[in-house]
Amino acid sequence: VFEKINVRSSVAAYIQIENQVQFAVASGQLAGEDRLPSLHELSQKMNLNINTVAKAYRDLEITGILNSRRGMGAFINKGVEPKCREICRRRILERLKEVVSEARAAGMPAQEIKEICASSYASSASPYEEPPSALLAMAKKTGTAKK
Amino acid sequence: VFEKINVRSSVAAYIQIENQVQFAVASGQLAGEDRLPSLHELSQKMNLNINTVAKAYRDLEITGILNSRRGMGAFINKGVEPKCREICRRRILERLKEVVSEARAAGMPAQEIKEICASSYASSASPYEEPPSALLAMAKKTGTAKK
Repeated sequence: VFEKINVRSSVAAYIQIENQVQFAVASGQLAGEDRLPSLHELSQKMNLNINTVAKAYRDLEITGILNSRRGMGAFINKGVEPKCREICRRRILERLKEVVSEARAAGMPAQEIKEICASSYASSASPYEEPPSALLAMAKKTGTAKK
Repeated sequence: VFEKINVRSSVAAYIQIENQVQFAVASGQLAGEDRLPSLHELSQKMNLNINTVAKAYRDLEITGILNSRRGMGAFINKGVEPKCREICRRRILERLKEVVSEARAAGMPAQEIKEICASSYASSASPYEEPPSALLAMAKKTGTAKK
């Protein structure tokens, strides 16, 4: 489930962990009763401070997605899938709307936005990785300014 | 040029102002030598603290997009359009890639992302406004979890 954290992303590392768990539940890669790595395991694996992982796990517990059992690890709660899916969908929808409206305001044609989305979806880059260079090259295009 | 600032957005108010100026230059709505409202005018019009506007203008001056002439107001620098366009495109592309990869990780099918983008582009909502309710309703769809 866990992809590498990108420390240069504008998204904080602990939020990247939280999101990865939520996305995995929303997409069915993780289900109720599944066990997550312990704080120690995950911080080792991802080369992160244990407090960063602890913060993410604590937030996920407060949201009701995770429960920690002393000496046994952390488990996804049963029945959280629909809630998780809705949280993810809402958050993604709001961000998509924001960035598409930004693109529109900046004069980018709809067709170009479509192409960037399609390439992003097709590339198997994980969310917080730098965009692949082929994608970045699309930023250089001069494009036609829209009055 | 200036749309209302949304104080509930995750994007800070002064950044919203900076972005709006950059988008307007990138799209050709503002050009070199165009005059922006004074700090006082803009803070009144947008119902913002004058320091918030001052911070945005200062950043835009540092980036080389704006220059303030004492007693005359603030002016867009000549020849900044290509630079501005590239800054905007790169920023938008990175964010689009991020949120599309998030959507993919959360199991949203490509078709749905396309639809959300199309509705967002078609709605004339300004970037930092709340998404229109028709769009938000799309978050409730159950969707099919992808294994």
